[in-house]
Amino acid sequence: MIQTESLKDSLLRLQNTTPLVLNITNAVVMNNTANALLAIGASPLMSDATEETSTLIDIASSLVINIGTLTSRTVMAMKCAASHACQTGRPWVLDPVGAGATRFRLDTSRLLLEYKPTVVRGNAAEIQAIFSSQGANDNTTRGVDSLLATEDVADFAKEAARQHNTVIAITGATDIITDGERLVRIDNGHPMMARVTGTGCTATALTGAYLGVQDDALIAATAGLASLAIAGELASTSARGPGTLQLNILDELYNLKPETLARYLKLT
Amino acid sequence: MIQTESLKDSLLRLQNTTPLVLNITNAVVMNNTANALLAIGASPLMSDATEETSTLIDIASSLVINIGTLTSRTVMAMKCAASHACQTGRPWVLDPVGAGATRFRLDTSRLLLEYKPTVVRGNAAEIQAIFSSQGANDNTTRGVDSLLATEDVADFAKEAARQHNTVIAITGATDIITDGERLVRIDNGHPMMARVTGTGCTATALTGAYLGVQDDALIAATAGLASLAIAGELASTSARGPGTLQLNILDELYNLKPETLARYLKLT
Amino acid sequence: MIQTESLKDSLLRLQNTTPLVLNITNAVVMNNTANALLAIGASPLMSDATEETSTLIDIASSLVINIGTLTSRTVMAMKCAASHACQTGRPWVLDPVGAGATRFRLDTSRLLLEYKPTVVRGNAAEIQAIFSSQGANDNTTRGVDSLLATEDVADFAKEAARQHNTVIAITGATDIITDGERLVRIDNGHPMMARVTGTGCTATALTGAYLGVQDDALIAATAGLASLAIAGELASTSARGPGTLQLNILDELYNLKPETLARYLKLT
Repeated sequence: MIQTESLKDSLLRLQNTTPLVLNITNAVVMNNTANALLAIGASPLMSDATEETSTLIDIASSLVINIGTLTSRTVMAMKCAASHACQTGRPWVLDPVGAGATRFRLDTSRLLLEYKPTVVRGNAAEIQAIFSSQGANDNTTRGVDSLLATEDVADFAKEAARQHNTVIAITGATDIITDGERLVRIDNGHPMMARVTGTGCTATALTGAYLGVQDDALIAATAGLASLAIAGELASTSARGPGTLQLNILDELYNLKPETLARYLKLT
Repeated sequence: MIQTESLKDSLLRLQNTTPLVLNITNAVVMNNTANALLAIGASPLMSDATEETSTLIDIASSLVINIGTLTSRTVMAMKCAASHACQTGRPWVLDPVGAGATRFRLDTSRLLLEYKPTVVRGNAAEIQAIFSSQGANDNTTRGVDSLLATEDVADFAKEAARQHNTVIAITGATDIITDGERLVRIDNGHPMMARVTGTGCTATALTGAYLGVQDDALIAATAGLASLAIAGELASTSARGPGTLQLNILDELYNLKPETLARYLKLT
Repeated sequence: MIQTESLKDSLLRLQNTTPLVLNITNAVVMNNTANALLAIGASPLMSDATEETSTLIDIASSLVINIGTLTSRTVMAMKCAASHACQTGRPWVLDPVGAGATRFRLDTSRLLLEYKPTVVRGNAAEIQAIFSSQGANDNTTRGVDSLLATEDVADFAKEAARQHNTVIAITGATDIITDGERLVRIDNGHPMMARVTGTGCTATALTGAYLGVQDDALIAATAGLASLAIAGELASTSARGPGTLQLNILDELYNLKPETLARYLKLT
């Protein structure tokens, strides 16, 4: 359904063209997100100032919005950025961190959803929260962690992607990506990755980088999630714990070659 | 006075129950704090938005407030959070970073103190500043570093803990923890830890994690400080400098076992 | 033109006196900046609260202002800090990150320039943007990256430094530092450093540390840039990628000796 060749080609294009990626992201992962984008070969811009977001979106290849640490000021910056990206046709990816945990996050996520993100990347609970009609729901989420497996929301996500004309990428033990027609699963990664803060945010940022070089958003999201999962898998072999793992992931992203991606990829 | 068994038991409970810890903390250490909490087995939430702090405190096991990088907005968020935690009986720990350095930090620390923190964790100068009746005082502090040894304020802290009905945890070459009745000293750690930013903040966050599983706040604070000191001690053996040390500490926290804690602990 | 002895002497003084360095810097590099300052032997203070900046400048040896992630609030904090430093004769260094990318950054940089920074540290495009009379210009910058080599703006920078009575430090493959009379070049470093976020910001912060112990600002800036370039060069020998590199740089800064600086320095 997805050709491995298209993923290899996307990585090659990313490395050859160094796409500019504008990030409005949370304060916890800002450093690590910038480093992951630099490592894989993109050029990160970090800014949440309404004074300059439109200008930066115009020169950027894509936009990443991550709601992990919101304030009323940054909600407004995100709204302006999403609106401008939507209006000018710039591809953008939304990461609704903890959408199921609080009303503030849920409302912000749904507000941003109106500006037609090219990809929405979250865990199973976040995807269910943002695309269902329910309120913030403690039964499927625990803080920012999902109590659901990705498979639990696969059908729901496929239908939601179709209705919203977007790509939905759900990370977990098995990653699921769907555009409402196609649905792919990635079986790479390592459990220790859940012990490093912001690995999901990194998957989102890498998807943003691929959106800058790949028009088929399903392929871009699959390439983003696969790049991180495989880097994490390789990084874990020599990691004594999550400290070394976080560091090794950056090294592996830097050393990632199209052939490595193809060799380790477990796609179904 | 404190049984090693109670510390081992606390770590075991932490690892088995993954307590949710809400952090309103400074921008410098946010990533590292989240990673330290994940490494030891807790689940970190990072948020300083008044729109959601009450909701998050209600689902969290404990709250950490760290004043390292204040703005008028975050002072208000901290006040709301401390007030809600106090009112609902949620255990919380206050880290008055640089309380002796500026009037702004001192006033904020004392304001928060009114909401009865379960534990106050600081260096010797910070503890003296917040609990004395004096103003910001350059003679005991240099920026955010203490010019006093923990022993210099041991008696003062014991009396302050008694008067304020709180636990005071003072980090330094020797750590001191007191609830006004009991007073324990920890002689673990490594001097190079002072060359990594935010090690004190990590001690505070780990104390917060233990407060989520241990009702005796003296034991929780002792477990928090001992976990970091021992992880730092083990991490230093293979560290070429503070870069490797910071990373190794996360790995050691991840690999920390109750027996390791008991074996290396130097408690008096 | 610059004696290596003066650089060795500056490092020795830095290590012996632990200068306090106040940083108003961007959210991406805050942790790494604090760690780099601690590693080399300085004492970092991080604060952008107008409530306390004047107090902190008074106790600090020097001030670092970095505009990497601006908001209207932090622009005001920077203005107050620069004004106070200028008025009280405290040495300070300005890092106009992305000055050529947006009007917001350019205007802020030029506003701060009025408060007579002791050193301005940027890449070639940023230096040209801030000191020329032109508007934000896409032809010389791509996001926060320069499309110009440092040599392209060497003469321009020398003249600008003379006119503004400041020191201009330009980082790139070859670093250039000039005070309008003297001009030195540093040929150290490693290309992989460009794949770690905020290496330029670290060069700025280290320059700030040296300004606290060295009155000759040309020597201070040269020592700052040389320390990072040599640490990066040494760090790269055992780095598998940018993750390891970032970490190794902190270790090398920690282990940097005056003799190491002298042995590896390629100054022309």
